[in-house]
Amino acid sequence: MRVLIIGATGGIGEALARQVAGRAEQLWLHGRNAEALRALAWELRAHPIVADLGSEEAVRAMMSQAGPIDRLIYAAGAVARQALREHDEPTWHAVWTANFEGARRVLRFAQWQPRARALFLGVYPDYVRVPGLGAYATSKAALEELLGVARKEWRAEGIRFILARLPAVRTPLWNPLGSPPRNALEPDAIAARLWELLEQEDVPDVISL
Amino acid sequence: MRVLIIGATGGIGEALARQVAGRAEQLWLHGRNAEALRALAWELRAHPIVADLGSEEAVRAMMSQAGPIDRLIYAAGAVARQALREHDEPTWHAVWTANFEGARRVLRFAQWQPRARALFLGVYPDYVRVPGLGAYATSKAALEELLGVARKEWRAEGIRFILARLPAVRTPLWNPLGSPPRNALEPDAIAARLWELLEQEDVPDVISL
Repeated sequence: MRVLIIGATGGIGEALARQVAGRAEQLWLHGRNAEALRALAWELRAHPIVADLGSEEAVRAMMSQAGPIDRLIYAAGAVARQALREHDEPTWHAVWTANFEGARRVLRFAQWQPRARALFLGVYPDYVRVPGLGAYATSKAALEELLGVARKEWRAEGIRFILARLPAVRTPLWNPLGSPPRNALEPDAIAARLWELLEQEDVPDVISL
Repeated sequence: MRVLIIGATGGIGEALARQVAGRAEQLWLHGRNAEALRALAWELRAHPIVADLGSEEAVRAMMSQAGPIDRLIYAAGAVARQALREHDEPTWHAVWTANFEGARRVLRFAQWQPRARALFLGVYPDYVRVPGLGAYATSKAALEELLGVARKEWRAEGIRFILARLPAVRTPLWNPLGSPPRNALEPDAIAARLWELLEQEDVPDVISL
């Protein structure tokens, strides 16, 4: 099995990388932080790929390097807290690149093995439709719709696109907001459950944790 | 009443401009096509504003020029037909700028009169979640979520954000797809109905035509 994890140095991405490491014949780990990524890849005997998800060319090169994959796990993500009336463009675009534009570009250039599956991290929309989370809420809504279109465009090839709605997880994603809520779940537990759900025989389009 | 129409040279935007002219004390009409915009503004005794919705500075200047408004009508929109696996970036961004990024920037810099209302053109998601309409479907989904956040951020000021779900309307929006469906509605009829709904006393957050 050939597996590519996007955002493998984030909290859930790294936990998933550790979860998948002994199970994949070939494991590619993408990240932005080259030092952390290379250390993780060395430890897990995986291939590190540093790429800027905001660059079409970088994503094209990454997907070409990984080649045809059986499992894509898109674990990149970012959040910021700014009201719409004062949102600065760089922060807006940083959140959007991680949550949506990177995913769109990965789908643009992905090569798939037969019966491949792709997992994306989603939200419970009612929980994130709150003041100050405009960039996060809108980019996750767009991601969800992207998967709806992708399911139809790749239906003939049998590629599956799975959205996992996650509750709060204790990861660095929360840093810009202060700290995770007290009831946040641990990334290792979430990663184990995600992989189990992704590998079940009849995986639904949307899984809720 | 001070009214600003974004995308006033498109099919629905122009029909709305004709509908509103005569009822608004001050009417600002935004467009990209300077020649068509100035002719329309001259005819309707409105103020033309040419601005690139992709430019934060241009949108800031436009909203400053219009000043505090009672009604914002966001009628800009674009569509393209390209599969996700071959979507080029310029086309993707052109659709997104018209359908979403322009709206986000307009909200960023808008100044509101008390009890102002803002109208945005939306879709029936199930109808547009089809192969080849990825940019359109995702940008309209993001727009809908944007309004969900906006309602909460401006709740204290009493500003209303209304999404109108439209069926197919006979406008130039359809040009990239060939032609509008045979059952497409006429822009004048849609514009009259939209204005009537927008001006009812208890307008809901979402109106479906």
